[in-house]
Amino acid sequence: MEHRQGDLGEGDNVSLCPLEFRYGSDEMRSIFSRENIIRKMIDVELALVRALEESEIIPRGYYERLASCIYNVRVEDIDGYEKEVGHDVVALISAINDVCGESSRYVHYGATSNDIIDTAWALLIRDALRVVKRKLILVIKLLIDLSKKYEDTLMVGRTHAQHALPITLGFKLANYVYEFANSLDRLLSTEGRVIKGKMAGAVGTMAGWRGKGLAVESMVMRELGLRSHEITTQVAARDGFAELINDLAILASQAERLGIEIRELMRPEIMELAEGVEGRIGSSTMPHKANPVECEKLAGLARVLRGLAITALENIPLWHERDLSNSSSERILIPHAFVLIDEILGALHGILVNLRVYPGNMLKNLELSKGLIMSESLMLRLTDKGLSRYEAHKLVRELTSKALASGMDLLSVALNDGRVLKYLTADEVREALNYMKYLGSYRELIERAISYANEVISRSHSC
Amino acid sequence: MEHRQGDLGEGDNVSLCPLEFRYGSDEMRSIFSRENIIRKMIDVELALVRALEESEIIPRGYYERLASCIYNVRVEDIDGYEKEVGHDVVALISAINDVCGESSRYVHYGATSNDIIDTAWALLIRDALRVVKRKLILVIKLLIDLSKKYEDTLMVGRTHAQHALPITLGFKLANYVYEFANSLDRLLSTEGRVIKGKMAGAVGTMAGWRGKGLAVESMVMRELGLRSHEITTQVAARDGFAELINDLAILASQAERLGIEIRELMRPEIMELAEGVEGRIGSSTMPHKANPVECEKLAGLARVLRGLAITALENIPLWHERDLSNSSSERILIPHAFVLIDEILGALHGILVNLRVYPGNMLKNLELSKGLIMSESLMLRLTDKGLSRYEAHKLVRELTSKALASGMDLLSVALNDGRVLKYLTADEVREALNYMKYLGSYRELIERAISYANEVISRSHSC
Amino acid sequence: MEHRQGDLGEGDNVSLCPLEFRYGSDEMRSIFSRENIIRKMIDVELALVRALEESEIIPRGYYERLASCIYNVRVEDIDGYEKEVGHDVVALISAINDVCGESSRYVHYGATSNDIIDTAWALLIRDALRVVKRKLILVIKLLIDLSKKYEDTLMVGRTHAQHALPITLGFKLANYVYEFANSLDRLLSTEGRVIKGKMAGAVGTMAGWRGKGLAVESMVMRELGLRSHEITTQVAARDGFAELINDLAILASQAERLGIEIRELMRPEIMELAEGVEGRIGSSTMPHKANPVECEKLAGLARVLRGLAITALENIPLWHERDLSNSSSERILIPHAFVLIDEILGALHGILVNLRVYPGNMLKNLELSKGLIMSESLMLRLTDKGLSRYEAHKLVRELTSKALASGMDLLSVALNDGRVLKYLTADEVREALNYMKYLGSYRELIERAISYANEVISRSHSC
Amino acid sequence: MEHRQGDLGEGDNVSLCPLEFRYGSDEMRSIFSRENIIRKMIDVELALVRALEESEIIPRGYYERLASCIYNVRVEDIDGYEKEVGHDVVALISAINDVCGESSRYVHYGATSNDIIDTAWALLIRDALRVVKRKLILVIKLLIDLSKKYEDTLMVGRTHAQHALPITLGFKLANYVYEFANSLDRLLSTEGRVIKGKMAGAVGTMAGWRGKGLAVESMVMRELGLRSHEITTQVAARDGFAELINDLAILASQAERLGIEIRELMRPEIMELAEGVEGRIGSSTMPHKANPVECEKLAGLARVLRGLAITALENIPLWHERDLSNSSSERILIPHAFVLIDEILGALHGILVNLRVYPGNMLKNLELSKGLIMSESLMLRLTDKGLSRYEAHKLVRELTSKALASGMDLLSVALNDGRVLKYLTADEVREALNYMKYLGSYRELIERAISYANEVISRSHSC
Repeated sequence: MEHRQGDLGEGDNVSLCPLEFRYGSDEMRSIFSRENIIRKMIDVELALVRALEESEIIPRGYYERLASCIYNVRVEDIDGYEKEVGHDVVALISAINDVCGESSRYVHYGATSNDIIDTAWALLIRDALRVVKRKLILVIKLLIDLSKKYEDTLMVGRTHAQHALPITLGFKLANYVYEFANSLDRLLSTEGRVIKGKMAGAVGTMAGWRGKGLAVESMVMRELGLRSHEITTQVAARDGFAELINDLAILASQAERLGIEIRELMRPEIMELAEGVEGRIGSSTMPHKANPVECEKLAGLARVLRGLAITALENIPLWHERDLSNSSSERILIPHAFVLIDEILGALHGILVNLRVYPGNMLKNLELSKGLIMSESLMLRLTDKGLSRYEAHKLVRELTSKALASGMDLLSVALNDGRVLKYLTADEVREALNYMKYLGSYRELIERAISYANEVISRSHSC
Repeated sequence: MEHRQGDLGEGDNVSLCPLEFRYGSDEMRSIFSRENIIRKMIDVELALVRALEESEIIPRGYYERLASCIYNVRVEDIDGYEKEVGHDVVALISAINDVCGESSRYVHYGATSNDIIDTAWALLIRDALRVVKRKLILVIKLLIDLSKKYEDTLMVGRTHAQHALPITLGFKLANYVYEFANSLDRLLSTEGRVIKGKMAGAVGTMAGWRGKGLAVESMVMRELGLRSHEITTQVAARDGFAELINDLAILASQAERLGIEIRELMRPEIMELAEGVEGRIGSSTMPHKANPVECEKLAGLARVLRGLAITALENIPLWHERDLSNSSSERILIPHAFVLIDEILGALHGILVNLRVYPGNMLKNLELSKGLIMSESLMLRLTDKGLSRYEAHKLVRELTSKALASGMDLLSVALNDGRVLKYLTADEVREALNYMKYLGSYRELIERAISYANEVISRSHSC
Repeated sequence: MEHRQGDLGEGDNVSLCPLEFRYGSDEMRSIFSRENIIRKMIDVELALVRALEESEIIPRGYYERLASCIYNVRVEDIDGYEKEVGHDVVALISAINDVCGESSRYVHYGATSNDIIDTAWALLIRDALRVVKRKLILVIKLLIDLSKKYEDTLMVGRTHAQHALPITLGFKLANYVYEFANSLDRLLSTEGRVIKGKMAGAVGTMAGWRGKGLAVESMVMRELGLRSHEITTQVAARDGFAELINDLAILASQAERLGIEIRELMRPEIMELAEGVEGRIGSSTMPHKANPVECEKLAGLARVLRGLAITALENIPLWHERDLSNSSSERILIPHAFVLIDEILGALHGILVNLRVYPGNMLKNLELSKGLIMSESLMLRLTDKGLSRYEAHKLVRELTSKALASGMDLLSVALNDGRVLKYLTADEVREALNYMKYLGSYRELIERAISYANEVISRSHSC
Repeated sequence: MEHRQGDLGEGDNVSLCPLEFRYGSDEMRSIFSRENIIRKMIDVELALVRALEESEIIPRGYYERLASCIYNVRVEDIDGYEKEVGHDVVALISAINDVCGESSRYVHYGATSNDIIDTAWALLIRDALRVVKRKLILVIKLLIDLSKKYEDTLMVGRTHAQHALPITLGFKLANYVYEFANSLDRLLSTEGRVIKGKMAGAVGTMAGWRGKGLAVESMVMRELGLRSHEITTQVAARDGFAELINDLAILASQAERLGIEIRELMRPEIMELAEGVEGRIGSSTMPHKANPVECEKLAGLARVLRGLAITALENIPLWHERDLSNSSSERILIPHAFVLIDEILGALHGILVNLRVYPGNMLKNLELSKGLIMSESLMLRLTDKGLSRYEAHKLVRELTSKALASGMDLLSVALNDGRVLKYLTADEVREALNYMKYLGSYRELIERAISYANEVISRSHSC
């Protein structure tokens, strides 16, 4: 077939990565834009010159002059040099040289590329984690609000996708409050290990600063607001990145779990919750359908993040004082991981804000088993009155079998069973089969989950 | 620290994915550009209209009129609609409608989005695999040439990174010929399962074409040069993609293995092979260093591809007649996997073209163990002459221990050992310790590997 | 707390791997038992002695004498030697020496450990794949039978877990027929690449058999019924294992998909299919519950298999002519992968044999949307009669919105809409909304899927 | 070929998992033996009965009577019941019933299976982590000792496997001290999130204990020395397991990195470090070889652990108040992950205890580049004296090129270069090229790494 191709518009803008235009917020994307990555590298180079000056390794005056010109370098010029020399930091230094001339004499003095790169990663990850934490806290707060709002909204708890026991929607959602709060807690503990700069020169001995290395490092880190690794080779150890990406993959998997929750409860046969879609066309052929496409996206993107967790783990066993194999994969995995989690948290936020809740359907579904899900309650009452657990188990099993076979509800079957009435009065049977009376300590548990989440959030704010 | 930031140049072009500008050939990148993906979707929509017309489901004349305008749609217009309706295929149809008006009346008639998307994937993957196969064949041919050129170039074979037995460089490389040929063979068998179109309407029953569905499908596929799946739900089964991405991850891992080979043999203590770098600055602080950065890149990118293999596997268990969870992850994983393998094959090609070989160092290193690596040869000769394998093993072990302890070479030690001379003449001992005489069937094996590779290549061409 | 521990029974039998006692058939477990792995290694050692004798490298008579004693070695004796020397093949040879004495003089002559290990893996994998294929074919045949039996059993097709269009249960299951048949096809093509022996001595040059190596290799392979690799280093290339394990992970993921299908359709609100559990206690507290525990197990075990796929990929980049890093991981991953897939296929078989089908519920659920799922059908009819696709889309969207708002069924709404009746008669509207008339080419598609599966199965038998 | 098979010894003991007999210490294996898992489940059941009694839900006296008989249940009896009912906790309760009769009336009262299972996991993981931490601390302490012992042992630092700059062996190893200490720190923070019990009944509401649930939970946890989750569904959230397994995979990857370090430095061309193997037969055909098989094993097992990290991540998105899919995979992944890391740490310990160090070879290799690795030092001195970094870079590059071309050492070339002598005296040139003078702050960095590690270790002890 011969293509009769028009030009389809702007020909050179051949984006192929959906993270460029489809996923992620502008805020997060701009953190990992080439431009911003270069800006952070410049921040580090500049901080180094200041530190060199203050520790009197280089003459006074360079920092101020450099600061006034260094941000005038242009990405295109760096690109030009990089094509020539095949090395991004050397290209950056050359471009700075062009722009600042003599003022740039001491740029990168005594440093190695990864002093700049690893410290820039620390700055970028710090900024990115701020966004992640802020959005995660928003999600947790929405869940807390929903949890309180629906604290007493009765619904069936489902295990194995079968009806188990009554819960409330608030109780269900409080579990997510807890799970996401755990992720926040985890990120808080991870960031202490991963947001760390490195300024130690080639092979990590600080040889280029002859004895003043620790002072230089300390001034650079103070300038940038970072802690530094205690020791490094030519690169910082990669275990922290593997921990971080895995944290994000865990968070994505939790989001996927909540997405599955909603997708399932949005089935037309169930319709207890629904992803609120406004004005969106569900399907090109089935215009009436409202599909949980945002929730489905959570699952798809979580799969990418889980794959990236493997990549991050494999970057750990670098050779000797470094090999370059982590470099290419980190250029991909760190920005992708953060833009993906950003999209996931953004989508999750939208889902929760627009979440539709159908308490009437919840009640209707709860009644579906005609009381059978209360058999545990009945069994426990019987045990209270002297049956062994084993006997009670057997008796209730017979009652439920009878109810299932006859289509009667469990209450009627129980009230007609002599063995039951030997142990319980009719009122006690009714009490045992009342959903509202069999919610256990749900209020305290919701409260406990929310308190915990609030405690983690407040710890996060104080970081 | 206050940033004194200039604008660093073109501010809006905030690329964050290195596949946009750093990795992959323009050829491969343009296959997976948004523009080209849309072009392939249009190809499919157009082929469908033709098939509908030929099977007399719609009136004659639409196809020709549509063909003259449909490629005039512009990516920007599709973008506009997509932002509005949140659905890419509906957006495409709307944009076509705008451009073609009445001529587009039957566009997408009876189809579902994934008829278009999955068939477009088949077309894109076919094109991408052509590039992959072509580049892989180039790599194999380079390896065949090198294998022949260095057929008799003696070097030490290394196991556990220790010296084992003599081999030749040609023999070493012929193993890579075989391994990459296996990958080509694997891709040839995979493509039969994965380059398959789908034209079956919502839920896959072809209900929209009332009884003529199989004819429509068959005409579309003929037009596009594709085979179709035997049956599908609303989407084609995802197992083929998981197979494909894993094939690419295997190929990447093989490339990594060759990269490790060169990185290791380029160590200054060994220096038998080297990545030929021209005019490249090795390190910002150690200007003399020539680093195997291309070989290291192979390892880094292979790690990303292995991670994507997991993502592809997780896309298989879709719910019922489809869920959307594969969609977002495939948008990322398919283009990324192909651009990554493209970069890997391109880098590998460059590495092999510029590979530096140091036969002198190979010989020097071979002698390093003073003949100890020939102990197996000696042991077998002793067994020939009547020692049990166990006794020969023990005797040679003693000789090698003595050689190691004394710093003498094995030949001298053996010629001075009465027990050895009970079984072998001095000439037989010398023969037993001659590297050139202990290369086994290396020539036939090289030949066999090359023949096999050529057979797979010729099968590839006939596909 | 002080433990008052009894001994809980047989103290030394401290199994910790559930594959030892919980998962997998005895048949598969016995293939990968230590005993059988050793037996296969002995098979290979014996075949080598025969080949050496036939190619006149060693004197006549050894093979026959060896064959009469070699299988008398005992696992315990090998264990003893292995503890001493830390090398399993050396330990095996020592144990053979003890049992066979002088008859074992030429055991392992000229070979390297991985000649034995890799060839034994080929034998073990061949046996294991026979079991896998046999069980997979059984599963496919059960699915074919179910597909035929329920060919016309109407149910709703679900996309995004929403109601989409009518299908039949037979059509749904025919998709699984196709998907599993693809897995069988994939295994048939993989086994050609992976069931390959290796007999090439240290570093792979066959140096120990001085020029007769190819003949030795060929006789060994003929004896064992194997093809050999075209060339190897000291070990066979590991790409084939990565392909194989990924095939099994794909198959497991397909099984998981079918398991999810059943778990979802077994929800009490849906109850169209159910895992048939007999006499099993569903839950310790909710005795009435019948849980889809076998289907759930499919998902859990598939996750382990997907993880192993990563391990297998990472084994590819071995150093030079070998390093040992694949050894420890393959000892775990190959047996585990096969026992897991064996358990999965066994469970799947049981699930399908006991599958409960509720056609009444299928019909009831189908009616749930009051005809709304037939809106595509109506839209296409309207397009037939002259509306543009876009207009028809809009009109039907209005009708469905009205139906949804009013609670009326689509038929009534459509019959009361003047715009509809301008294009269609009342009978045409009724026809357009009849589920049975909107199943498309489902019969031909089922037939096509089954034919394809039967073709693959018959190819499998002829292998 | 007909097999003439003897019985190979103990036929029924068909172990297939190498973790049963090959890998891991008895101590770790016994933690995850079936017997011990059951023992922990009994511990939990017993603690629950005590808590029920103390909170006056059940009559006094049961706990004491139960405690005197409950540990008499036998694994075989549980197995028998499990085969019958297909449910391990029900089987356990039945077996307890048989052994304890009436005393067991309140066993499991109000609980759900995962109250027992998840709390038992917490106990098992606590015990397993104690072993891991203890062995990890031993490894760190060995590394600290080696780091101090070889603090000043000069060797070359390697980047890209090329010679970079001088370091000391102590400095190299101090990096591992830091990396492993990070893993210890990580485990300390993870264990707070993962060693948590769960006692909340079906669906997690504590309904069975009517209002006294929180008290029951609190008493059980106090009895077992555990903290509890703030809220759960029927199962505890799985994010903690994913974090834990990833921590172990990180630790394994760090061990792999150290293993690679040694394997590389043990190459005969380098021979600076060696895995100390005593009396082990290296290869069946090359008896003289001492292979780093323990270090290679680290890599192989790390690959398995990385794969398990994926499995653990996939277990997070459970449906609603639980599905069973995590159960089967956790039975495998938790014990396997811990036995693997146990084997890794054990092997690492052995490697470090027996590590052979060759300072002479280190010096010899350091001289290999004839001073070229000191070019950075020279460049910095030139910059000190007024050259721009760019010019100094260029000049030194010329000197090194000249040295490389001529075979002269850098010192001679520099002393003969007029441009150099314009800036530096001959003594300054010699100083600039003295390895010992270019080790930077290595002592302080080693000290800092060790202090950090000691701080983490002391925090670990106080946990």
